[in-house]
Amino acid sequence: MPHIDLPEGVPGIRSGFAFRPETAQPMCELAEVLLRGENTLTRGERELIAAYVSNLNECVFCQSSHSAFAAAQLDGGMPLVEQVKRDPDRAEISPKLRALLAIAAKVKVDGRSVTSDDMEAARGQGATDVEIHDTVLIAAAFCMFNRYVDGLATMTPTDPGAYEEMARRIVDRGYLAPVGT
Amino acid sequence: MPHIDLPEGVPGIRSGFAFRPETAQPMCELAEVLLRGENTLTRGERELIAAYVSNLNECVFCQSSHSAFAAAQLDGGMPLVEQVKRDPDRAEISPKLRALLAIAAKVKVDGRSVTSDDMEAARGQGATDVEIHDTVLIAAAFCMFNRYVDGLATMTPTDPGAYEEMARRIVDRGYLAPVGT
Repeated sequence: MPHIDLPEGVPGIRSGFAFRPETAQPMCELAEVLLRGENTLTRGERELIAAYVSNLNECVFCQSSHSAFAAAQLDGGMPLVEQVKRDPDRAEISPKLRALLAIAAKVKVDGRSVTSDDMEAARGQGATDVEIHDTVLIAAAFCMFNRYVDGLATMTPTDPGAYEEMARRIVDRGYLAPVGT
Repeated sequence: MPHIDLPEGVPGIRSGFAFRPETAQPMCELAEVLLRGENTLTRGERELIAAYVSNLNECVFCQSSHSAFAAAQLDGGMPLVEQVKRDPDRAEISPKLRALLAIAAKVKVDGRSVTSDDMEAARGQGATDVEIHDTVLIAAAFCMFNRYVDGLATMTPTDPGAYEEMARRIVDRGYLAPVGT
């Protein structure tokens, strides 16, 4: 049961958003620009970073939803997403994305653990400063989203179909479309 | 030295904001509504939660700046802020704020560590659902801001005067005022 009086039947972060629209708006805008805005990283790659960090933080709602959002936008689909979460070093992804995921994993623990060697490894695989910046911020932002979702004990759907439905909505409409429209 | 090519001489999070205005805007909007918007928690109390969490995350830039912002808006000034960071259980703050800081400290570790007992303790001291929500989200948001600042290895001023100057600007103008105006 949620820790505060959140609207019933609304899953995960959406219940926090409905409870407090004033803070929901900038959080949704941040997700939209980070995960769907103009970028040399594809939307699928960015959702994969989000799913990977959420899985490291063991946030079931965020890792389930962003895994579905990544799977819907990556050629490898859910098998690739599951592979990345299990073992990014052996997953069938580009060496650049692998190096960025390594940075994301460090940010998840503590920003100070990111080293210049991590930067060189990513740059050596062709990562740009904007790609590195956005990877750091996606990882940091999911350290917020994950804690928000779990710190309020929001409702976590157990039916995978619920996440697939969310994925269709996010892929088609994005993070700023009003729910229910 | 910063990990990416951030503008020189710009301290802390401001250099990330200058590098990537697209993501800066929603982050500043979130800070403005959480820390300065209409609320039954005072601005000083909310900055104190931000400083407390940033100190737990050992983010020198964020803890120094938000300590200065809290000190500028609390009757007890910097001595009270230092007392809270050192030992919130003995600091001269309201029992409600103490209970909210305990929730913030748990969110810092992991959202899942927050319990219904923590909620009861806060409610027993008069905390409302919105106050609890905002405490959870301030703590979660600073887990993002702290990682962003340190994950990019932004520049950290060592002169306390630099933070006092930032405090004057934030107290007068808020988080949405363009820098340098």
